[in-house]
Formats: sequence, C-alpha cells, structure tokens
Amino acid sequence: MLSFTSDYIAGAHPEIMKRLAETNLENLSGYGTDKYCESAIAKIKKACGCPNADVYFLVGGTQTNQLIISTMLAPYEGVIAATTGHVSVHEAGAIEYTGHKVLEIAGADGKLSATDIEALVNTFHADENHEHMVFPGMVYLSFPTEYGTLYTKDELTAISDICRKHQLPLYIDGARLGYGLASYKNDVSLEEIARLADVFYIGGTKVGALCGEAVVFTKNNTPKHFLTQIKQHGALLAKGRLLGIQFDTLFTDQLYMRISEHAIRMAEKLKSLFTQKGYRFFIDSPTNQQFMILDNEKLKELSEKVEFSFWETYDKTHTVVRFATSWSTQESDLSALGELL
Amino acid sequence: MLSFTSDYIAGAHPEIMKRLAETNLENLSGYGTDKYCESAIAKIKKACGCPNADVYFLVGGTQTNQLIISTMLAPYEGVIAATTGHVSVHEAGAIEYTGHKVLEIAGADGKLSATDIEALVNTFHADENHEHMVFPGMVYLSFPTEYGTLYTKDELTAISDICRKHQLPLYIDGARLGYGLASYKNDVSLEEIARLADVFYIGGTKVGALCGEAVVFTKNNTPKHFLTQIKQHGALLAKGRLLGIQFDTLFTDQLYMRISEHAIRMAEKLKSLFTQKGYRFFIDSPTNQQFMILDNEKLKELSEKVEFSFWETYDKTHTVVRFATSWSTQESDLSALGELL
Amino acid sequence: MLSFTSDYIAGAHPEIMKRLAETNLENLSGYGTDKYCESAIAKIKKACGCPNADVYFLVGGTQTNQLIISTMLAPYEGVIAATTGHVSVHEAGAIEYTGHKVLEIAGADGKLSATDIEALVNTFHADENHEHMVFPGMVYLSFPTEYGTLYTKDELTAISDICRKHQLPLYIDGARLGYGLASYKNDVSLEEIARLADVFYIGGTKVGALCGEAVVFTKNNTPKHFLTQIKQHGALLAKGRLLGIQFDTLFTDQLYMRISEHAIRMAEKLKSLFTQKGYRFFIDSPTNQQFMILDNEKLKELSEKVEFSFWETYDKTHTVVRFATSWSTQESDLSALGELL
Amino acid sequence: MLSFTSDYIAGAHPEIMKRLAETNLENLSGYGTDKYCESAIAKIKKACGCPNADVYFLVGGTQTNQLIISTMLAPYEGVIAATTGHVSVHEAGAIEYTGHKVLEIAGADGKLSATDIEALVNTFHADENHEHMVFPGMVYLSFPTEYGTLYTKDELTAISDICRKHQLPLYIDGARLGYGLASYKNDVSLEEIARLADVFYIGGTKVGALCGEAVVFTKNNTPKHFLTQIKQHGALLAKGRLLGIQFDTLFTDQLYMRISEHAIRMAEKLKSLFTQKGYRFFIDSPTNQQFMILDNEKLKELSEKVEFSFWETYDKTHTVVRFATSWSTQESDLSALGELL
Repeated sequence: MLSFTSDYIAGAHPEIMKRLAETNLENLSGYGTDKYCESAIAKIKKACGCPNADVYFLVGGTQTNQLIISTMLAPYEGVIAATTGHVSVHEAGAIEYTGHKVLEIAGADGKLSATDIEALVNTFHADENHEHMVFPGMVYLSFPTEYGTLYTKDELTAISDICRKHQLPLYIDGARLGYGLASYKNDVSLEEIARLADVFYIGGTKVGALCGEAVVFTKNNTPKHFLTQIKQHGALLAKGRLLGIQFDTLFTDQLYMRISEHAIRMAEKLKSLFTQKGYRFFIDSPTNQQFMILDNEKLKELSEKVEFSFWETYDKTHTVVRFATSWSTQESDLSALGELL
Repeated sequence: MLSFTSDYIAGAHPEIMKRLAETNLENLSGYGTDKYCESAIAKIKKACGCPNADVYFLVGGTQTNQLIISTMLAPYEGVIAATTGHVSVHEAGAIEYTGHKVLEIAGADGKLSATDIEALVNTFHADENHEHMVFPGMVYLSFPTEYGTLYTKDELTAISDICRKHQLPLYIDGARLGYGLASYKNDVSLEEIARLADVFYIGGTKVGALCGEAVVFTKNNTPKHFLTQIKQHGALLAKGRLLGIQFDTLFTDQLYMRISEHAIRMAEKLKSLFTQKGYRFFIDSPTNQQFMILDNEKLKELSEKVEFSFWETYDKTHTVVRFATSWSTQESDLSALGELL
Repeated sequence: MLSFTSDYIAGAHPEIMKRLAETNLENLSGYGTDKYCESAIAKIKKACGCPNADVYFLVGGTQTNQLIISTMLAPYEGVIAATTGHVSVHEAGAIEYTGHKVLEIAGADGKLSATDIEALVNTFHADENHEHMVFPGMVYLSFPTEYGTLYTKDELTAISDICRKHQLPLYIDGARLGYGLASYKNDVSLEEIARLADVFYIGGTKVGALCGEAVVFTKNNTPKHFLTQIKQHGALLAKGRLLGIQFDTLFTDQLYMRISEHAIRMAEKLKSLFTQKGYRFFIDSPTNQQFMILDNEKLKELSEKVEFSFWETYDKTHTVVRFATSWSTQESDLSALGELL
Repeated sequence: MLSFTSDYIAGAHPEIMKRLAETNLENLSGYGTDKYCESAIAKIKKACGCPNADVYFLVGGTQTNQLIISTMLAPYEGVIAATTGHVSVHEAGAIEYTGHKVLEIAGADGKLSATDIEALVNTFHADENHEHMVFPGMVYLSFPTEYGTLYTKDELTAISDICRKHQLPLYIDGARLGYGLASYKNDVSLEEIARLADVFYIGGTKVGALCGEAVVFTKNNTPKHFLTQIKQHGALLAKGRLLGIQFDTLFTDQLYMRISEHAIRMAEKLKSLFTQKGYRFFIDSPTNQQFMILDNEKLKELSEKVEFSFWETYDKTHTVVRFATSWSTQESDLSALGELL
C-alpha cells in the first residue's frame, strides 16, 4: 500500500547497497577500525569543518542518545530537554535506565528556548536546597524537532551561548539532520551546527542508511574510554564496516544532502496537496514530517487507502496524524496520494 | 536561636531516649530480628487494622521511597507523582538512579487527582506507540503533601479506586503522617489509609524519632526477598533495635498521635500569630507546615531573629518561606515568636 | 593480507546480500513487524521444533546477553557463568552495568559442569547469611565455548536437569551455534538445544550475517513487555527488516547449517596443517576456533605474513594465539597458510 | 543467653548514650551541618594527622562501601577485592547494583597482596582486547579482614605503592578499624592508614556506636558533589547530629581506642579458653573475631548454651564458627563461657 508512515520504510539508498555488495568479501578488522570507517570519519570531519572532532558510529538513535547522555553527565546530573523531546517521551525511559533524570521544559512547537533554559538553571541555583536536587548537566535538543520544526541560527546561537555560560554541554539529536539542513527555511549550516554544539549526531537510519548514526564530539570532549563504554552498553557493532561503508557513501559526492533535498521537495508537494484540499495543519513544519488534523471519520476512510501515523488525539472528533516523506519517496507516490485526497 | 526551620531540629521524644537507655546493654540479634522490632510490628499492624500486613523499618525517607518504588515497579515502569512531589524534586534523582522515570502530573496545592491520574493512564494506552514509552506502574502521593495540604477521604478513595481499576499500586509517603492524621481538618483514619493504600510508610524522623520510617505492605504484596533488596541498596541497619525500640515506644499509649496533635495545636497558634499581624499565606495548610509570603526586606529582618526555611521565589520582591512546628515545639517558642512579629 | 583473525572479517553470505538488494525498495513496517521477520520467525520455530517459542532479533551478542540476562533475573539475583565466559570477561562489564553480579565458576576447558553448578547453589543455601548474598538466578553457558569446546548431550542434559531442579533458567549463548552444531564431534541437535535450554540465541554475526542474533524463548517465558525493554536498552532496530531478511535467508534451504559445515571442514584442514608442522595446541577444539601455543619469535615472524589473534600469555617465551575459520574461509586461504607454515 | 554472635549485639557505649541524652532537645540544623558533626570532624582529622582531609558520616558499612566505590570509579571501571571481601560476598551485590564489577583475587587469609594486584593490572594491560574488559579502577581491602587478620605496615605500604604506581585509589574498609589498631600484633597507626589510603572509613557500628561510619578522604579527593550523591543513594541522614554526637564522643579522650583495646583483651582471653580446651582454630586471628573448627555434634551441644555464628562448612563432620568479642563484652561473659567449655 501507498505509505507515508515514517522515513524508515525503505531499505538503504541504492548507492549504499551497491557499495556494500562491492566490498562484501573484503577481509576487514572489526569494531570500527576498518578503512571504510576511517574514510567516513575523515569525510565527516571535513564536512563539519572540524579537523579535530572525534567521530563514532552507532546503530540507532535511542542507543545514541542513551550513550551520549549517560557518558557525558556526572552521576548527580540530569539532561534538560523539551517535554516533547524524543528522550522525554518515546525512548521507553532509556535515559532514566542509566540513572539520570530528564529535566523537562514545556517549550513551544517542540522547541526549547535560551530563556527557558536559563530560567531553569537560575531557579536551581537560587534554591537553598539545590544540593538535594538533580543538577542540570547538559542540554538536549532535536534538529529538526519531533514536530518537524527548526531552530533558527539566532535561536541556536542563543542556546549555545547560554550553555557555555553555564558550562552545560549542548547535544543536538540529528536523527533527521539532513532534512533540517535541506529545508528551504533553514539558515544553519552543518559547520555551524558543529561549532554551536558540543556533540551531535548525523542521522543515517532516517536519511538513506539501513541503520547507523554518526556521533561527532566537536571539542576534544569524547568521554574517556568511550569505546569501552559503547561495549558496556551492548552497542558496539562487531562488523563496524556496515556503518563505515554506509557513511562513507553518504558523505561522497554530497549524497547525504542530495537525498535530503529530494525529501524536502517531496514534503512541499505533499503539503500543497493537503492545502489545496483544505486540510488543517497541526503545526507549520518546514521539513519532511507533516502533521494534519483529521476528522476521525475522514481518518478512517483515508487509512484504508494510504498508510500514515497516528500522532495524538486532538479532540473528541479529531486526531493529529503524521505523513512523512524521505529520500525514498517517489513522485508517483505523491500523484497517487493526490488522487486519493 | 528560636527555630521553626523544620520538623527535625530536635533529637527524639524523651520517652524514646528513655527506652533506648534502658535497653542499651541488652544483647539483641541484628537486622531487625530482635524482640523490640517484633513488638513494634505487632503494635503497628494492630493500629493499622491490618493483621496480615508486613512491616519493615528503614532509616530515612528518601531511602524508603527509593526502595519501595524500585522494588515494586517492573523495569519498564515509572511512578506517577505530582510535579511538586518529594520524589520528583527533592531527592536528588534517587528514583531515576534506580532506573525509573517519575511521570509527573502538575496537580494543584501539591495534590494529585483521580481524574489526572486516569487521564495520564488513558493517554498512554491510547498512544499507538506506547510500547516505546514508559509504562505507568504505580502512584505516589504524600499525606500530608509537601505543601502541608491533605487529601480528603473522598479524594483518596477516588484515587485508590482508579489505581485498582488500572492495577497500579498506590503508595502513600507518610513522612509526616502523624501531622496529617492529627489535623483538625482530616477525615481519614490510619485504618483507612491502610485499606486504601497498597503500601505506605509511617514517618518517624519528623514525628519524634531520631531516625526511622515504618513501611507497611498492606496486601501481602511485599516484594520478593525484600530484606536482600534492602541490603543491596545499602539500607539494612545492623542494629535494627534502634528502629524497633523507637517505633515500639511511638506506638505505645498512642504516643505517636499525642505528639502529632501537640504539633498541630502549635501550628494553629503560629497561624493565628501571623494572621493577626496581617501576613499573607501562600497556601492554606491545615498541618504543621505553614507557608507565608514575605516581603524580601521583612524576610531579611526576621531572619536575624528567628530561623525558618526559604521555600521558593514568589516574585521579584517577595519570597515564600516555611515555618514548621513539631512534637518538640514549645508554647514558649510561640510566645517568643509572637513578640518578634 | 591473509587473515584468520576472527569469524567476522567478511561481510554477509552472498545469498543474504542478494536478498537485501532484491527487497531494498519495498515499503515495510518497522521494529520487527515486517513480513520477513515473520517468515524468519516461523522458519526458526520450525527448525527448533518449538511451535510455541517466541523469537526476537537483536543486533549483537553482548547486547543480547545483556538484555536476556537483565530481563530474566530478579533484581537480587546473579547469573552463574564460567570464569572464562564471554559475559564474565569480554563484555566490559555489560552485565554488572545492569545491576547484576556474574557468579563465576572456574570450570575446565571453558565449560561449566552440573556438579559445579549444584555445589554453588548448595553452598549458597547452606549459608545462614545467604539473605546477605546474591541469589543464583540463572545459568549462562556458551555453545561452543569461548575456547571452541563443546558440551556433549549428556553434559547439557545434566546441566539442564540441575537447572530445572533449582528453578534456574538455562541460557545458552549461541554466538557460534552453527559451528557447534556442525562439528564432527557434536551429538546435540538444534531441537535438543531448544528443549534443554530455557532461552538461547542463534548467532548470525559470526555465521554469515552482517549483524544479528535470533533469541529463542522456548518455554512461553518471554520477559513481560520485552519489546519495551529492548527499546529501553537502546537495542531496538528501526529497520527490523535488516535482521528479518538475513535470518529468513539463513533458514532457507539449510543455509545456516551448510555454511557452518563448510567452516568446520576448513578448521579441520587448518588443524592438519598445524599438526603436520608440529605446532602445539593449547586446547583440543572441535569447532572453528583453534588455539596454538607459539614461541614468541615464531609469533612475530608469522604475524608479518598472516593475521590471527593474540589470546593470552602462556609463559615468558610463549603465547596462545587463535586462528578462526568461518563460512567465508576459502580453500585458497588454507593453501596459502600451508605454504607460510 | 550468653552471646558472642557478633560485635554489634549491644546498643552504644554508655558515654555515647549520655551525650545523646544531654543534647537531645537542642535545636540543630540537619544533614550533617550541626556543631557536633563539625567538632567530630575536627577531632577525626587531628587523630588521622590529616588537616586537609574531608570527613563524612554515613549510617552503615554496606552503604559506605557502595557510596565510596560507586562515586570514585569511572563507569567503565571495577574494584579489585579479595574473593572473601565483604563487597564480594556479603553485601547482596550492592556494588554490582551500582553498575560496577568486583574484580576478585583469591588471596590468602582474607588478604590481598601487592604482587597479586600488580599481576591483575598487568594481565589486563597485556590483553590486546582490554578495551572490551572492565578496567581495574580501585583497590578495596578490609583492615582487619573478614577473617580477623591484619596487614602489616610493610604489606600495606607495598599495596599502597602499587596502587599509586597504577593510579588506583586505595580504599580501606575499617568496619572494625579500632580492633585492628588495638591488636597486640598490629604495627600500623591511624596516621599511617590515613597516609597509605586514599579513602578509608572508621567503623562505628561495630565499635561502640548505635550506627555510623566516618569516611575520610585523605587527599583532597572527595567525589564532586558528594553530598548530593549521598542523597541520591538514599543515604543522607536528616538528623546528622545522631552521627556527629556519636563520633564526637568516640574521639574524645581516646574512647574509640580504649574500648577497642578492651575488646582485644577479651578476645585474647577467649582464645586462651578455647586453646586450653584443645579446640582447633580455623585461622590465627589477632583481632576480635575468632574462628574455630567445631565437630558438628559439639556445635549442636554448645549452641544450646551460648550464641555464636555459623561461618562456613569445613567438611562433612565439621563446621567453622565465629565467636566475636567487642567493647561490650564483660569479664563475666568469659567466665561463663569458660565454665561452659
């Protein structure tokens, strides 16, 4: 069936499949020490304008969030995140599992603001009993957010400034980083992300890879013995080549950006289709995830012909749903959708 | 200096000190297996009207909350609590340290409502992705709350009903249970607490003991090998007699209730003193903790003559402060305070 | 360079690569709910003779061990394992990370015995203070072991019987299960493994897959909400198809056994080469891992021409090394090795 | 009944009870900030010859071990201990509960040796795969050991030197420190313990207090925000005065040493009684714990008249038992025992 359920419904970009096949029988060392990982790391460092960055490849997003947050926080610290952040709500408590609280800020449109972060930090320090409280130790935000929205360069800069003022590492979850960078509304470059964040990851799973996320520690700030900690979390892939080859391919000839731009073009077309038919949007998203408010009867009717995601209950008779495009969305998918609507 | 800082500024009730001295050189077995623990357990079970309850003694409140919540939750579950709950904000992340999320509900006056709890549970189950979320596994509330307020019998019954409907154990933090039961406004008895809750604790530290809290599992629902889990958390007291003797004394001749009633009488007098002088209250508390809104200059002036607690910033020129009475508050303390005001 | 470093130096079996390519652009649902996972599960259940088993796919071995052990143990329990077991020594403390002790037994040739397990359990129960000790909660063994050795059917049956007698689930780590089953010395079938164990995993990473292990809960004993717990550990793969397609291929036309048998034939040839040249073996291994004792000078000389693994120091002038064959070892590799020796 | 079960069968030394009673109604601040804690800290620092030490009071021994070890280790590190160490066997997995492995060394007579520690560290570093292993991060030993034995000054110095060479903090568990220092066989002073260790604790529970252990960080090496971490573990006592007053008393007029010396005199008398009657000792202990090998029939007979502890099975017809003296043992207890034997 026609599907806009998520941005991970297809396998990998054909170019990746080709490279995996070509290198398949080469004998390579394990755990990320092979030449393809090496090459991918070099290309990513270059793309980020960070010659001194450390780059590690992990398998999935929740795993990456858990590892980075738990290895960068001191035991008495928690991570500041939006209430709607992926780590707050959709990772089955993976952060708490490692012993740390998620310090939630309501935010707006899925975003944190520098002002809200500073208010939380100041309230903490003003409290005479703050030694009995969880110390704010890090800031987590998603770019784009879980609602498809983007931070402007000014907003990210303000957040980064506040973080440095309070010595809080800034961590950017880039599960869909490509779709953010490629958005027509975006004014932040990959180099700027790397400069503003202390650590971030470049999402592969949702942007063309079978699996894999590339973690970038931008400031010589890799947690000590990080490889051992990856192993301790059960997250060290034996055949690291699987990740290295994929990222090496994604960062060759701008493939990562080219396929991200395609997804954004598809999203804009999808938006037009819904707009033309008078559908209401729950939020104004400039990236590949689009959220519509559907009448529950319409929802039922539509769901028999096309796949999409339930997002949340809007009111008794309406529901918020998500349609996602990706690198694999075809023009023909949109034509078919147009006819359905 | 005159002090209303907290309800744990004095040692133990003199009757307890006397019993500790009298039994001091007796040879007793360790880890809670002595005859005083046995006697205290029998008295508590009787007072609760729970002949089949299991009773354990622990040293402090955060320890008790951590142990009960972490041993009663399944690994994939979190505990529902008010945003202002002690476990949410003032235990340095002790719950998260054990791997569990605190699922916060804003509430009002420090209280949860049955409606809010059910809404949270229903939202969870309605979410198609709830397998990627923390399962609500238990409800935590404080009686009285951190703001001195009380649940009525109707409110507690409604919460208990919702909990049973959804198979969520109801845990009542009774750090100040005596002061709640003794309040002129209270309509719930200890027996009813024991019937409505699945587990609760009777606070000793704040109600006359040097240390110690008595945990009551009311429904044959003690976590398996609980003693070993107490030990594993570093919470097993070698000389369990210290706790047994104290609770045995507190539950002899109604001492626990008598000293609680005294504290409430003192609190009512303290309230009158502030009311007469035209002070504003932050919240209407019928128990031993009283919260006033002080002009910051007045606060500074007052704090040179009497000790009390900072609670939270009210606005730029005002602060919320707490005055607590306890079993050890003297009539003379109130006279002295009256003169100061 | 010629390499016998490990059994995960190549990519995936060409048949797997072919199936991944063929299915690459199909739109499939995530998290293991796709039709290939479904088909692979059905084939595995059939191969195990366990129509009622539950099968889950995970990415790697340490992850699998961590998840199974931590979700099957009660908080106060530890897992019994050989001192040389993978979970004891080569997983960076992944079991302890989840809060559980590995209760080590010295064993012999990398193996546990039923007698040693029962002795440990009896010693525990005989101790008056056993409530202050870690409860034995599960038995972990590897088939084949980390030293390439195998348990006979009699040995495994005796261990399984002891485990059932003491209600300890038996968990078999099958990272190299195929190489054990295919060994000329093996007398246990996959069905028997499934019958004797309470849970085991069929290793993919080392037996033909890019990544992936298939966990089989044989007795309707899957930990509650296991999917959520996988997510909580950061171990849930978004594109579950990657694992489903691989195992579906491995369990089609006996591919898993055919490639395992090939590896064993290669191992036997490798053994002959070393035996003919008078090399000493550290242990008599009937599977794909072979351990030789090399004079340190010989080691240095050899390591310039062929890759293999350091295993452990034997004495001041000798070292134990490992040569591993796998599904990807070629006859020509062995000819080349023969010439080198 | 006459009891030599343990060194914590009585309450507190009468001098402590007197001071607790005298100060009982003073209003004091909580969580260890009162003047008695302050005074006790000053006296302990002086007694240790460590003007710059940091001193914290905790409630019990397992709690102390758990807190110190888990806050001083990095996440990827484990603690080296004797197989017979308290943390290895009798704390219900309290160390593993915090995520860390206990790296066990068999040792002899309950003791570690510098040679064994260095061998473990060297083996670790020599292993090519040590990044997949738990890093040795700290050394734990008990003085006296769980078998009553002592380290000589030379042995401790050698261990301390090895620890510093490998940058491993040395932690000395002093649950029975007084009884070690007071032993006729001891050649190490408290100042030397403080100089050789990086952190140690002075046991109160077993040496005259109702509860309480004094942790001494000797080298400006207190873990960051230690108070918050104490709270997070549920180990922060509200009425810190209970610990402060006890240690202030124990360190006034050498009370701690005087009562320890008494216990040692009693132990020597007890030893003579058993020796005279021809009993066999399991180990030659110069401190307050004595271990005898009893014929099982004799054991049964004796246990009807005097209380002591089961220690371990010796062989089919013999058992190792423990008799402990303490500050509270009376001359009359020994006379009574003499008659029984």
